[in-house]
Amino acid sequence: MSSAGVWVTFEGGDGSGKSTQAALLGSWLEAQGRTVLRTREPGGSEVGVLIRDIVLHHRGDIAPRAEALLYAADRAHHVATVVRPALQRGDVVVQDRYLDSSVAYQGAGRVLDAGEVRELSLWATEGALPDLTVLLDIDPSLARKRLDADDKPFDRLEAEKEEFHTRVRDAFLALAAAEPQRFLVVDATADPEDIAVVVRARLARLL
Amino acid sequence: MSSAGVWVTFEGGDGSGKSTQAALLGSWLEAQGRTVLRTREPGGSEVGVLIRDIVLHHRGDIAPRAEALLYAADRAHHVATVVRPALQRGDVVVQDRYLDSSVAYQGAGRVLDAGEVRELSLWATEGALPDLTVLLDIDPSLARKRLDADDKPFDRLEAEKEEFHTRVRDAFLALAAAEPQRFLVVDATADPEDIAVVVRARLARLL
Repeated sequence: MSSAGVWVTFEGGDGSGKSTQAALLGSWLEAQGRTVLRTREPGGSEVGVLIRDIVLHHRGDIAPRAEALLYAADRAHHVATVVRPALQRGDVVVQDRYLDSSVAYQGAGRVLDAGEVRELSLWATEGALPDLTVLLDIDPSLARKRLDADDKPFDRLEAEKEEFHTRVRDAFLALAAAEPQRFLVVDATADPEDIAVVVRARLARLL
Repeated sequence: MSSAGVWVTFEGGDGSGKSTQAALLGSWLEAQGRTVLRTREPGGSEVGVLIRDIVLHHRGDIAPRAEALLYAADRAHHVATVVRPALQRGDVVVQDRYLDSSVAYQGAGRVLDAGEVRELSLWATEGALPDLTVLLDIDPSLARKRLDADDKPFDRLEAEKEEFHTRVRDAFLALAAAEPQRFLVVDATADPEDIAVVVRARLARLL
């Protein structure tokens, strides 16, 4: 998305450390004098919070196409009303999850065609793609151990079985391999401060 | 949608008498010994009720693509979990609004491409189309007078200005002209019982 700002997204499974890295990057950028917008999908807008509540916390099953469309609706509203205005102001947008999560989770992980899920997201956002996407790669069984150490109850997706998370990981790695210019893949089991240094170095080229 | 059942949708502006005609048709069908499922979009499923609440009652603006995607999500879940199972059981599904409403309201009425909105709905439902669509055609200024006679507060779409409703009416008529085999267009200002007779005559061919 060509504009005055810079847009960075973090991708990876639950327990891969996306929130930690987004927070470290945000603090560093603010120390550099940049205005930072920290946001996420789903749920990065007022309407998105309502959609997030449906897709993550609804008790019954949601039809796979309905689920993909709800994520795309959240994305459409978020990009149009939050991300794009921030980039036009010249801010740095640091975001947890974007369309790569939909492709990996909905497409590769479930019964839908990954290419169709991607097209849906691109229609939703009029083709908006981040300047940099950091993939925090981790073996799902290690990520699960990190999550088990937390007290938080699992949401619908976290409760899916391990085989599903392995397919999601493979899908993320395939997406990164297909777009090396946009992606930075890092080993999420490394020390968080070491990861943050690698992310800053890559981002510095874009600032 | 080939199956044992029959699927009838009612389309038209607010105040055109869709609910009245759907009720009359449902009663007549039940008197004929058919099992009838009365339903609607948005909001014809448990998940759909949550989506309907966002699209019709959210106080702030919703980005046009997000709105179209929310309607499509409602439709995907409704067709997969309510309509298709009923048709497979051999029921007659009598439904207020379907994809023609999205094309007319979202596509022609707003800023989106009508063909894209239609494609979105067809992706959502894997191409499901009703056996019969009854378009209750009425001049928007007459429909408005009917609505003004009610006590109910207007929802977001009803509050749009009249020019918008004229574009929606024209879009509905164009859709009907393009698919004469699926559509029955009736003058919604006629006597409700007379309209019901015309609808039954057309439906009888499909039963």
